[in-house]
Amino acid sequence: MAKVTIVGAGSVVFAKRLITDILSFPELKNTTFSLTDINQERLGTAEKMALRIVEENGGYAKVEATLNRREALAGADYVLNLIQVGMHQSTLIDFEIPKKYGLKQTIADTLGVGGIFRALRTIPVLLDICRDMEEVCPNALLLNYTNPMAMLMHAVAKSSSIKSIGLCHSVQNTADDLASYLNIPVEELEYKVAGINHMAWFLELKRNGVDLYPELFKAMEKDDVFSKDKVRFEMMRRLNYFVTESSEHMSEYTPYFIKDEKLIEQFDIPIDEYVRRSERNLERFSETKDKIERGEAFHTEKSHEYGAPIIHSMETGTNRVIWGNVLNTNLITNLPADSCVEVPCLINKSGIQPCHVGDLPVQLAAMNRTNINVQQLVVEAVLTGNIDYVYQAVMMDPHTASVLSLEEMWSMTNELLLAHEEHLPKFTSGRNLIKKELVQ
Amino acid sequence: MAKVTIVGAGSVVFAKRLITDILSFPELKNTTFSLTDINQERLGTAEKMALRIVEENGGYAKVEATLNRREALAGADYVLNLIQVGMHQSTLIDFEIPKKYGLKQTIADTLGVGGIFRALRTIPVLLDICRDMEEVCPNALLLNYTNPMAMLMHAVAKSSSIKSIGLCHSVQNTADDLASYLNIPVEELEYKVAGINHMAWFLELKRNGVDLYPELFKAMEKDDVFSKDKVRFEMMRRLNYFVTESSEHMSEYTPYFIKDEKLIEQFDIPIDEYVRRSERNLERFSETKDKIERGEAFHTEKSHEYGAPIIHSMETGTNRVIWGNVLNTNLITNLPADSCVEVPCLINKSGIQPCHVGDLPVQLAAMNRTNINVQQLVVEAVLTGNIDYVYQAVMMDPHTASVLSLEEMWSMTNELLLAHEEHLPKFTSGRNLIKKELVQ
Amino acid sequence: MAKVTIVGAGSVVFAKRLITDILSFPELKNTTFSLTDINQERLGTAEKMALRIVEENGGYAKVEATLNRREALAGADYVLNLIQVGMHQSTLIDFEIPKKYGLKQTIADTLGVGGIFRALRTIPVLLDICRDMEEVCPNALLLNYTNPMAMLMHAVAKSSSIKSIGLCHSVQNTADDLASYLNIPVEELEYKVAGINHMAWFLELKRNGVDLYPELFKAMEKDDVFSKDKVRFEMMRRLNYFVTESSEHMSEYTPYFIKDEKLIEQFDIPIDEYVRRSERNLERFSETKDKIERGEAFHTEKSHEYGAPIIHSMETGTNRVIWGNVLNTNLITNLPADSCVEVPCLINKSGIQPCHVGDLPVQLAAMNRTNINVQQLVVEAVLTGNIDYVYQAVMMDPHTASVLSLEEMWSMTNELLLAHEEHLPKFTSGRNLIKKELVQ
Amino acid sequence: MAKVTIVGAGSVVFAKRLITDILSFPELKNTTFSLTDINQERLGTAEKMALRIVEENGGYAKVEATLNRREALAGADYVLNLIQVGMHQSTLIDFEIPKKYGLKQTIADTLGVGGIFRALRTIPVLLDICRDMEEVCPNALLLNYTNPMAMLMHAVAKSSSIKSIGLCHSVQNTADDLASYLNIPVEELEYKVAGINHMAWFLELKRNGVDLYPELFKAMEKDDVFSKDKVRFEMMRRLNYFVTESSEHMSEYTPYFIKDEKLIEQFDIPIDEYVRRSERNLERFSETKDKIERGEAFHTEKSHEYGAPIIHSMETGTNRVIWGNVLNTNLITNLPADSCVEVPCLINKSGIQPCHVGDLPVQLAAMNRTNINVQQLVVEAVLTGNIDYVYQAVMMDPHTASVLSLEEMWSMTNELLLAHEEHLPKFTSGRNLIKKELVQ
Repeated sequence: MAKVTIVGAGSVVFAKRLITDILSFPELKNTTFSLTDINQERLGTAEKMALRIVEENGGYAKVEATLNRREALAGADYVLNLIQVGMHQSTLIDFEIPKKYGLKQTIADTLGVGGIFRALRTIPVLLDICRDMEEVCPNALLLNYTNPMAMLMHAVAKSSSIKSIGLCHSVQNTADDLASYLNIPVEELEYKVAGINHMAWFLELKRNGVDLYPELFKAMEKDDVFSKDKVRFEMMRRLNYFVTESSEHMSEYTPYFIKDEKLIEQFDIPIDEYVRRSERNLERFSETKDKIERGEAFHTEKSHEYGAPIIHSMETGTNRVIWGNVLNTNLITNLPADSCVEVPCLINKSGIQPCHVGDLPVQLAAMNRTNINVQQLVVEAVLTGNIDYVYQAVMMDPHTASVLSLEEMWSMTNELLLAHEEHLPKFTSGRNLIKKELVQ
Repeated sequence: MAKVTIVGAGSVVFAKRLITDILSFPELKNTTFSLTDINQERLGTAEKMALRIVEENGGYAKVEATLNRREALAGADYVLNLIQVGMHQSTLIDFEIPKKYGLKQTIADTLGVGGIFRALRTIPVLLDICRDMEEVCPNALLLNYTNPMAMLMHAVAKSSSIKSIGLCHSVQNTADDLASYLNIPVEELEYKVAGINHMAWFLELKRNGVDLYPELFKAMEKDDVFSKDKVRFEMMRRLNYFVTESSEHMSEYTPYFIKDEKLIEQFDIPIDEYVRRSERNLERFSETKDKIERGEAFHTEKSHEYGAPIIHSMETGTNRVIWGNVLNTNLITNLPADSCVEVPCLINKSGIQPCHVGDLPVQLAAMNRTNINVQQLVVEAVLTGNIDYVYQAVMMDPHTASVLSLEEMWSMTNELLLAHEEHLPKFTSGRNLIKKELVQ
Repeated sequence: MAKVTIVGAGSVVFAKRLITDILSFPELKNTTFSLTDINQERLGTAEKMALRIVEENGGYAKVEATLNRREALAGADYVLNLIQVGMHQSTLIDFEIPKKYGLKQTIADTLGVGGIFRALRTIPVLLDICRDMEEVCPNALLLNYTNPMAMLMHAVAKSSSIKSIGLCHSVQNTADDLASYLNIPVEELEYKVAGINHMAWFLELKRNGVDLYPELFKAMEKDDVFSKDKVRFEMMRRLNYFVTESSEHMSEYTPYFIKDEKLIEQFDIPIDEYVRRSERNLERFSETKDKIERGEAFHTEKSHEYGAPIIHSMETGTNRVIWGNVLNTNLITNLPADSCVEVPCLINKSGIQPCHVGDLPVQLAAMNRTNINVQQLVVEAVLTGNIDYVYQAVMMDPHTASVLSLEEMWSMTNELLLAHEEHLPKFTSGRNLIKKELVQ
Repeated sequence: MAKVTIVGAGSVVFAKRLITDILSFPELKNTTFSLTDINQERLGTAEKMALRIVEENGGYAKVEATLNRREALAGADYVLNLIQVGMHQSTLIDFEIPKKYGLKQTIADTLGVGGIFRALRTIPVLLDICRDMEEVCPNALLLNYTNPMAMLMHAVAKSSSIKSIGLCHSVQNTADDLASYLNIPVEELEYKVAGINHMAWFLELKRNGVDLYPELFKAMEKDDVFSKDKVRFEMMRRLNYFVTESSEHMSEYTPYFIKDEKLIEQFDIPIDEYVRRSERNLERFSETKDKIERGEAFHTEKSHEYGAPIIHSMETGTNRVIWGNVLNTNLITNLPADSCVEVPCLINKSGIQPCHVGDLPVQLAAMNRTNINVQQLVVEAVLTGNIDYVYQAVMMDPHTASVLSLEEMWSMTNELLLAHEEHLPKFTSGRNLIKKELVQ
């Protein structure tokens, strides 16, 4: 049966969800799970958790755990990536230094200064995993859950022969949100979605073939609906389409919401939101660990993540469609070829087959391009080792550019490069290489 | 419920198959079938046939029949095209005139002189149907079963706003053939297929993830296997891949098999095969008609045509993958953008979503391009009204070019243009326009 | 001999320059100049001016002047477009209304709110000229000098069969500037330039094959050099490349320089600069008119505009290279296909042949794309008549987005739409259509 | 001053022509010529010849000669490639073996079996030269004169960082031919040419802006004109356009002229023409050598080859247009991206800048594609080392396919692979690898 390797299995809560999902399919009950992490304590907890779920599901699956990543990858059919490079500590840096310069952030995991540095410290590790895979499981499929999704998958697609797909749940979650705003069962929604990760668009939204956008515009007029998703509704009002990531995320992908206090208040922008979430994640890990140690009852409910269904489709041939992040091989015709897009993908025994989308509405392609500008520069920085691209990525960031001067951006980037140094790739060229040394 | 219009419903045997397929789905039992044809007798038979199937399936569906095509199309959700312009009489011309010049053919419905003239007389009618659809059912999906598939769908995609897909059964049939040659249940075959209609390629052929091509090469060594499919096995020996259309078809898409008697004999090429099939079709219509008139028992078995499953997927949202013929929007990256390709398509409530394939192996792209050369010229001839493109299409045909001189090709084309005149589009430009008049 | 029609010939100063240039070529001395304008007074002055130049050049050329544009265009070989729709009055509106919202501008003729509305009022007139040309001189070449260059040429290329090229002098002027900063004769500079109009990049800058960028970075360190071109040097410091338009222009194409007073002061941004220039233009017209009336001596010096050399190359076959604005037929591979780019073009008897450039450095493509986002939306607004694209163009403008909230942008756009109404196209669709009516 | 290295300088007659051309430019009189060859005798003759020309041109230039290719290349600015791998002996094989199978050829240096094997033995040597250049003169421009042009330049562009251009004189020669058929001075012809090497098309042919094709069609009616260029006129009659290579070449790029004796006679096809030319080349070398040894008078007349003007333009900045063979970076939009096309190129200090052409007429693109099919397979064979592509290249050749059966093609290819073995690349994979061994 299939061997599923989970890299970063110490993300116990998310790993639990995926293992539960996989074992919910009878055809996958004999799966071998190979867990690996760099943190022994977390890996130990993950192993116990996995064994427990296997037991609750009849005991057919096999669990292995090892600190040796290469060993865990050897012979894998599927590799799930859940790593978080630098953990909470790096996240704090991502928020604190920009704040000194007056630059506020909400989630900072996708774009913006936070997203850029998260990518800079994560891409090298992910490419390292790919190098290992090329040697010990060259035909395995990499299913990535780590952010920033677009930059990571873009870097992998450009520099590794490993087949890969980036997975998120923002399409599913947004469908749930829309169903609730429209007061309709989510199963009745028919939709067409495409764009880039966290900024994909509901290009069509229908029930029984009838356009639901007029309803949604009406729903937005109600205060209780509008107040649940202010930024996304405001963007829909301007762009005519609803976007896949939440209001807190969307506010920092654009220059419209965080540049002054009045707007922050008007749109309820939760500054520093991810710092709080990151703290809660640490707590949840502790709680989960304690529960497992104490042998307490265990909540195992099937999620709507795409990972398990993909494995099921590839093993059994069941046709499924999921939204995946892949290289833009002319799938979205008015976004750059050199970018990573989120499009419907057919999954079956032939693997991942992304579907052709065509042109996005002009204004949506324009919004996506402002984000792709940043993404391309970050990927280029890592793949070429030229440090100038890091500064230029910051400079192209729509939110950062609306708040800081070029001089401030350069100083802030200098500081961040030093603060994150242990996790960053070794830069070898660029005019700014010298200046950085001077700062040191 | 959905309204399904069948244009050319007088193709009673095929129409019967599609109606049976549709009614085999419980969710489609209320379908309204609107039948139309230009032949009153055939339409009458089709109507009786349809009513009989409806009755056998519980009587929920509705049947309409009219000679007024526009009326039949009004408000349709799906339009199935089964027309055959010129019928048996035109087919005879397609074979007889070339034969006078020493040019033999087998099926003559896809490429070659026969395919070219079949396209020239069919495209104008099909575009006329599309014009009607644009007015009376602009959102309906056109499902085309008429040949030559690639040229027809190419012309529609280039000149109409109607959504369309071209459907064939060569992928399914070839899978059956391969299963029998390999002595394996067809359900166990895993394959990846792409190319152009009637010349698509089994790019992967596996069971349980293991490549079956070595087995197939071994099977070919056995005389009883080889003799069943000589041309396709010979082509596999040379190109390393198996093709989707039968040996009799394949022999006339290339310059390798019909250019001399020795080869015709060596590869058992059935010259004039389609003339015989066309005669049998006339007989089968008579038999079917008689049976219906006499109220005799009726054979209604579900087929493996894609038409009904597509309608089912679009109505219910069930994900399915089918091989469809669509415009090459960079789906196959080393075939021209201006061509019609056969690729896997995801079908669900969002309609037809063709999947990205990428590059074909170089030799397969090369073979496909020799056929696309002809197809583009035929489409150009109809869409521009320039008669020179007709002669040049004949000149580019690989089989014709291997047998005739340029002078012979021009004379033969002159004769064919005159013989088929009543069904052809009105040509308005081109150097050869004058010469043609001279012949008259 | 060639017939050269000048539309907007009332732009007397510029028309004088082009006529002088053309007559400086002996091979073009028999040119027929056909002048047209909507302003009788200006046209009269232009005619007298033209006759004077002809006289000074031996009297071989012929001059016609007519208010009937169609008559002027009939049989033309070259059409020079110099129109300015709305004149000084519209320019004032472009500056005054935004200023009420706190949005400052410098030139406002390329991008930003001013550029958007200049395009909205100019594209319809230019397309009207093209419609006339399609009928009365379908093979003539349109040489456009009116701004905003990129949007105008993009609209023409997308919707007319007329061959066209957009001409500017920013490449030549910037070469002069660079030569002076480097203290080198301009003839010794070797450069490779590409991008979009007013934001093209000196990709290579050499003398005798040796890179001059290190010299330029050194020159920038000198206060007297830096102070002459602060914004462009600052951008070079960040992006590593020098840009083709002046510091005053460049400051409003980006979000970095006008968003607060400190930056405006630091970089000497000349707010409202174009209002002053526009006033001076009116004065210069009066002076020129007076001189002509009084029969005073006349300054006729050859310029470095591309118009005359292009006509000379096309008439005589002399190979020349000029930088022209044309549709991006994969010339710059990492800018959108649906955009207008500025690239080297070969000119000879075969006409305009744009050269392939390839990928721009990633950061430069990113900067260009932020401007193309706006351009595409403006062109779409005019070609579709959908008013929403106007608001979305404003929303995508990098400078505007760094200063205003979405609500402010919408109000400002409402006001501008009303104030400019007489010159705008008739919008027929879009969600914002209703709101606009409400404002009225 | 510039260093020009001539590889294969032993092609004394051609080397003489290029050196003469270069020294005809005053600005290039100080050129250093570095001659290299693998044949000492020929190299010696070349050196003496070069010294003589230098002397006749004032003695400013410098001449070096060495058998050490790497030494000759070190520090070069321009590298002219004139090599002929296998010389006359290999040419004989290219003609003799196919003839045994009934396959006749005329020139056999571009396409067909002869062209394929010429490419197979030349590409490895040329790539080896490029490897050397990457190390000792990475910025030099490679100007290639060796055939088969398209396959060679395609292979170089796909696998080396060296800038390169392929040069031929078929455009210039054909212009001369056309001028003589039309009885017009060649300087008065205006033309637009594009396609692939030896099969590029006169897309426009004018004088004073007036189409000359009607004249050319009239001229063709005269027997004395037609008889000078039968194949090309016949192709023009069918395709409506004139092609750049001569009738003897063109006859073997298509399936229309050599497949039976009657056609060979009707069109005066000079079978084995190149064997005779190759013998004459050997004689001309002897004559030239003798003359040089005897110190006899020397014919040095400027040619119309592009090599020297390119060097002059790149050294002085003079704008020129030449037809060059380069990778198809969307220059001809309906030919494959993975091919080498012949298009107008602007030459100046910025180097080689190919111009955008757009779509060819459909029938011309179709003809080109039948040749590109073969070219891609040959390049793939060398770059991948897979022997199957060699057989498949033969199989795709239009002329070969019209004459031989697949079995005959395979046998003939087997024989040729053995006969040419010493010059061929080492093939490492492919189904036919085994069979070849069996033959041995």
